Amino acid sequence: MGLDRIINGWKKENNALVLTERFEDFNEALAFIVRVGLLAEQSNHHPTITNTYNEVSLMLTTHDQGNVITEKDYDLAEKINAILTIAK
Amino acid sequence: MGLDRIINGWKKENNALVLTERFEDFNEALAFIVRVGLLAEQSNHHPTITNTYNEVSLMLTTHDQGNVITEKDYDLAEKINAILTIAK
Repeated sequence: MGLDRIINGWKKENNALVLTERFEDFNEALAFIVRVGLLAEQSNHHPTITNTYNEVSLMLTTHDQGNVITEKDYDLAEKINAILTIAK
Repeated sequence: MGLDRIINGWKKENNALVLTERFEDFNEALAFIVRVGLLAEQSNHHPTITNTYNEVSLMLTTHDQGNVITEKDYDLAEKINAILTIAK
C-alpha cells in the first residue's frame, strides 16, 4: 500500500504530512498557494495552508478517514512537489 | 491614537487582531485569500493566513514593533472587512 512512502521534504507529524517552504517574498509565496489551491480543487483534497509573509506550511491528512495519512495525501504531496520544482 | 478601536468581526488575541471566516467552499475561500494577499502587498503589511477548506483565519500584528497591535493592523483589518462586504 506504500503507506510508509517517503515524500521528499515532507515530515510526518500528528498523523499528517507537513511541508514548510520559504520563498523569495510574499509574492512568490502567494503564487505557490494559488497553484496548490488549484491542484487541491482538481484533486478534491485540500491541505491546511498557513502563510506568514514568505513562508508557507502545508498539512495533509484525510479527515473522512479519521485524520490519518492515506494514499490521497501521499499523491497530493507528490503533485505539490512537482509544482515546487517549477516554482523554485 | 485609536488603539482601542473595535473592528467588526475581529478579536484581540495575544497582541494580535484575529478574524475567522467561513465561506461557501474552498473556491470562495481561495478567492478571499488572493484578495487579501493583493491588499497586503499594496499595504506592505501581511497577515498570517491559515486556511482549512472553507475556513480562513487571519492574524494581524506588527512584527517590527515587537508584535503589538498598531494602526497598520487596524487599518488593514478595516480594508479586509471592505473586501468581505463585497465577497459575501
